[in-house]
Amino acid sequence: MPDAETQRKLIEILRILSESNGEVGARKIAEELNRRGYNLGERATRYHLRMLDERGFTKKHGYLGRVITPLGEEEMKHALVTDRLGFVSTRIEEYEFKTTFDPATDTGEAVVNICYINKSDLDRSIDTLKRVVEAGYAISPRLKVVDEGQEILENDVPEGQVALATFCSITIDGVLLKRGIPVNLKYGGLIRVKDHNAERFTEVIDYHGTSINPMNVFVSRKMTSVLKVLETGSGYVLANIREIPVNARENARQIISQLESADIHGIFSGCENMRPLLGVPIETGKCGIASYSGINPFAALTEMGIKTRIIPLSAVMNVNELKRLD
Amino acid sequence: MPDAETQRKLIEILRILSESNGEVGARKIAEELNRRGYNLGERATRYHLRMLDERGFTKKHGYLGRVITPLGEEEMKHALVTDRLGFVSTRIEEYEFKTTFDPATDTGEAVVNICYINKSDLDRSIDTLKRVVEAGYAISPRLKVVDEGQEILENDVPEGQVALATFCSITIDGVLLKRGIPVNLKYGGLIRVKDHNAERFTEVIDYHGTSINPMNVFVSRKMTSVLKVLETGSGYVLANIREIPVNARENARQIISQLESADIHGIFSGCENMRPLLGVPIETGKCGIASYSGINPFAALTEMGIKTRIIPLSAVMNVNELKRLD
Repeated sequence: MPDAETQRKLIEILRILSESNGEVGARKIAEELNRRGYNLGERATRYHLRMLDERGFTKKHGYLGRVITPLGEEEMKHALVTDRLGFVSTRIEEYEFKTTFDPATDTGEAVVNICYINKSDLDRSIDTLKRVVEAGYAISPRLKVVDEGQEILENDVPEGQVALATFCSITIDGVLLKRGIPVNLKYGGLIRVKDHNAERFTEVIDYHGTSINPMNVFVSRKMTSVLKVLETGSGYVLANIREIPVNARENARQIISQLESADIHGIFSGCENMRPLLGVPIETGKCGIASYSGINPFAALTEMGIKTRIIPLSAVMNVNELKRLD
Repeated sequence: MPDAETQRKLIEILRILSESNGEVGARKIAEELNRRGYNLGERATRYHLRMLDERGFTKKHGYLGRVITPLGEEEMKHALVTDRLGFVSTRIEEYEFKTTFDPATDTGEAVVNICYINKSDLDRSIDTLKRVVEAGYAISPRLKVVDEGQEILENDVPEGQVALATFCSITIDGVLLKRGIPVNLKYGGLIRVKDHNAERFTEVIDYHGTSINPMNVFVSRKMTSVLKVLETGSGYVLANIREIPVNARENARQIISQLESADIHGIFSGCENMRPLLGVPIETGKCGIASYSGINPFAALTEMGIKTRIIPLSAVMNVNELKRLD
């Protein structure tokens, strides 16, 4: 039985085949998967297609590609109909569980966000990423640049492009969880910064009630102004709020200082406020930890007019693979 | 004490004044309010400014405009800091409460969505709106066209533009509520239509956890394909899901037939399914009523490349003011 993640990809491939007329090749399926938010290269797509063939859900059709079988149609319609529609919070919990990053030893696997850009934009992108990190609106100064043709996890970076991987703030939640603190990443939002201080949230979306990642919503609606914040100290940037039980507050604070020693930054409110937190309601008996989002560097690139494809919560990656930006 | 709606506008005006350098005129404030999603004309803005003057929060500064007073800064920062950040569900409940539409007599006030377009696009827009209505993806065939310079509720339609008002599906929720059924408009989503049948939800956002209207999110991310549905019978359109207690199911069904007699359409699942509803989880003891969104006609205009400004849940309006499209 494949894991939930693989399961979702298999079903999406069946959907693509079902929605098309006639056979479809692996390259075209991979492209369509990417368009739908599944980060899968051609090679990995072929691997998934073989799994589907083995189960009798698809079959080869000449040299050109695959078609879906009646059994595959059945499978798609019934057994897993609700599978595609996952709330972002489910994915968050999967990744919190997968993280093994330990700030005490600065080792283990961290959650990363990935952003694809054109290779020709790389130099000016790196400059901007540095500025966002230095100003404190990212999570970590660490970065991995993956060149065209190389594989990033299951993916081949397309020709002419590079993939950038940066720390995702969910790493913080993973660390709190592993230290036994029940943590609930509640809202993704937009926070107004004034004179380099987080002033108040102006928009939020609950991760538990959305199938679209709030960070992508705010970036694609052009609601961020990270560049303006770098220049003037004021504007709108992406941030997250998680809730923990009030009685875990002291433990959480110790973990936050450890995270800072391990160069994990971006937390701008660590249970200092009782509720509400900068305008956002917090549940009774809970307190809120707010951090900037690891997507802010990529939002800045988008604001510059650079063509970006941002995939929050892409994967876990060993921290050794990421190098300091400096 | 002004109502919550007015309160929010007053605070937003204070914010605009606070964020600007020096005095600001009413026209510029009105423009900025519109940009921030507050649907207020210049005349109405002047009225609100007088309210702020009376309270000592703003004062006139020469002929050019208003400035915020220290008292106004205080007011803005403390008393009402959480006011701007409202969940969409709060606004939904305000409008459900305001609706007085009675399908039995076809009278009363219905909730409307408003869309501003350029006047030169009006003719081809009307054609498309008709097609969306005839295909069954709108709520009602009724429409109000408000010409430039005329007032729509508190607003003057800007020069060169017209405002289109159509039935909002929240009207259905208002009717259920007024007949004593506890109704909870839960998700705004995107539904895949195949051969003119609603097949499954592919994305949802919980109205209770978002400060941005999901309909605006899906339209601005270009995720709808209403035109394609009109042409081929398949594609993605906007829809809503509300939950009611299972034991209110029979009552709700009677109300739904009354709504149909009063030309209120678009409900494609009226508690037929037990949970989940086309891929979306429904709470235990509840059943779901799914309807197409009143925003679909405006989504179709956006897909045509027409410049639209869509304001879901804009106002309540007497049904007599809207005329049948035919």
